[in-house]
Amino acid sequence: MRIFVDAMGGDNAPQAPVEGAIEALRRFPQISIVLAGVLDAIEPLLTGADDVRDRIELVDAPEVITNEESPVMGVRRKTKSATVIGMLKLRDKEVDGFVSAGSTGAVLAGGMFRLGRIPGVERPALAPLMPNGKGYFLLIDCGANVDCQPHYLQQFGVMGDAYMRGVMGMEKPRIGLINIGAESEKGNALVKATYPLMEQAPYHFVGNVEARDITGDVADVLVTDGFAGNLILKFMEGLAGTLVDMLKKEMLADTRSKIGAVIAKPAFRRFKKLMDYTEVGGAPLLGVQGAVVKAHGSSNAHAMSCAIGQVIKMVDGHVVEIIEKGVAETVPQE
Amino acid sequence: MRIFVDAMGGDNAPQAPVEGAIEALRRFPQISIVLAGVLDAIEPLLTGADDVRDRIELVDAPEVITNEESPVMGVRRKTKSATVIGMLKLRDKEVDGFVSAGSTGAVLAGGMFRLGRIPGVERPALAPLMPNGKGYFLLIDCGANVDCQPHYLQQFGVMGDAYMRGVMGMEKPRIGLINIGAESEKGNALVKATYPLMEQAPYHFVGNVEARDITGDVADVLVTDGFAGNLILKFMEGLAGTLVDMLKKEMLADTRSKIGAVIAKPAFRRFKKLMDYTEVGGAPLLGVQGAVVKAHGSSNAHAMSCAIGQVIKMVDGHVVEIIEKGVAETVPQE
Repeated sequence: MRIFVDAMGGDNAPQAPVEGAIEALRRFPQISIVLAGVLDAIEPLLTGADDVRDRIELVDAPEVITNEESPVMGVRRKTKSATVIGMLKLRDKEVDGFVSAGSTGAVLAGGMFRLGRIPGVERPALAPLMPNGKGYFLLIDCGANVDCQPHYLQQFGVMGDAYMRGVMGMEKPRIGLINIGAESEKGNALVKATYPLMEQAPYHFVGNVEARDITGDVADVLVTDGFAGNLILKFMEGLAGTLVDMLKKEMLADTRSKIGAVIAKPAFRRFKKLMDYTEVGGAPLLGVQGAVVKAHGSSNAHAMSCAIGQVIKMVDGHVVEIIEKGVAETVPQE
Repeated sequence: MRIFVDAMGGDNAPQAPVEGAIEALRRFPQISIVLAGVLDAIEPLLTGADDVRDRIELVDAPEVITNEESPVMGVRRKTKSATVIGMLKLRDKEVDGFVSAGSTGAVLAGGMFRLGRIPGVERPALAPLMPNGKGYFLLIDCGANVDCQPHYLQQFGVMGDAYMRGVMGMEKPRIGLINIGAESEKGNALVKATYPLMEQAPYHFVGNVEARDITGDVADVLVTDGFAGNLILKFMEGLAGTLVDMLKKEMLADTRSKIGAVIAKPAFRRFKKLMDYTEVGGAPLLGVQGAVVKAHGSSNAHAMSCAIGQVIKMVDGHVVEIIEKGVAETVPQE
């Protein structure tokens, strides 16, 4: 299996992607990696990786699409960027999977316009796995589609179902619709129109899920539009930080609590690890014709190797094929 | 000052509203309370309140609008419900403020159709104060309007500004627009169209606020549509609970942490109190012609007395008048 890795993407590039690729090659003996980026920057980082060097193919990609530029224009003009080169290689089956911690917009635009959608898919969606204390749920969409139609959301269910079956090995994932009430008649115009479509879809729809139950392990896939999904994703990051800070402050406010906090350190460490979703990799881009994972922009080397592990599971789990089949079953036949 | 209290609203009615009213009468010597509900249920709860009994007026309100029925139909048909009676008394200036922990929909419908909107206000909005570790921010709207237009959101800013000036004594509250990116061109169709309207509005607009910064004390008023706002409100409740549970579980997983947790108990207690937003009361319904507070359905007596304290501050702070003036300045003159 060949995995394409964007060596120039993310806050810690090229170190984190290159070191993550090396770590992944050691963890997963069945893969080889195509590493694309500015060669002068990558090559020095390969010292000490002689054990896996023959499984690394370097590709010159001197251009980088930044977060500051228009993703669509970037993909159109920067044909020598890792994003564009990788998406074309994936389309042409020269590689089996794609990982980047670079601009989310560029990965989306590259996926849409260079790799291409699975036939029948209206809108590809970004779908990170998020912790709920007991395990993980898939949140789809988390920002690829800020203005949605009801049938997009119905399809997000198909794609999330495919991912959880293919990658997480679930037999019958529970698919929920994020809403402001549990009853079917609740919600804004979008979710009200989506509900009956999801009832008819070929997956295990468990109905509306209220926001207070998002982390309550009541569904394995939570479907929402990209605006609400992005709010939830980012709010979870922000709030977890705020709460931990607040607790820390209280812990340091009196001597007794300070002592307790020191003693309870192992628990805090485990808690932090539970909340650290870089362990599960990044957000798969579902609905495009290949296994694509967008790693978090702040990924370190270990997070990058986890994202590579995730894309391997997507290939092994035939996620693209399962989505293709599911969408064909769901799309009204003309 | 006369405050109307719905004695039948909420999960703990009539005990919590009645006992909360008694507590409020003791805390706030300047008020009297009109307590409406099923008299046979209320009267026994007044034993032991002889010290404030002469400041309580009982009103027979034998009907209750439940969470299960249509709020609009409930308000139309149940003319002997506390919600309807109270809204009419507020409209007719027989009371100065209104508090209920009952059906949110009924309070909204009663506010819209019995009390009435402030001239120029498009849509009244529910706006709870929420903790961010340093203080509180106002989230507007949190569920009254699930499908919004850009000028509704512009007005939510006016109303939130009025509340923070009148009740919280802020001179120049920072008004932010909740969005999925900080740049003005980010967002869905609604927020993109709202941004320029808020730039022109007569308040201190600080631009887009990303969800990860919601609890980061970057704005005093956070404007959003009722769907997103309700998600944020409920997610905050749910996530805080999940995180505390996760931490607790880790704390009990080994003996050392268990001991640490016992020692650090005072810190946990303070942390819990910080997160307990019942201390600040309920959610004001802004944009109607009177001071209305919707207390949390699960309010206990103390939370009810805080909600009564909040409505007193709304009256003293002339929130309705400030909104009226602000809206008149904002509405394009025909």
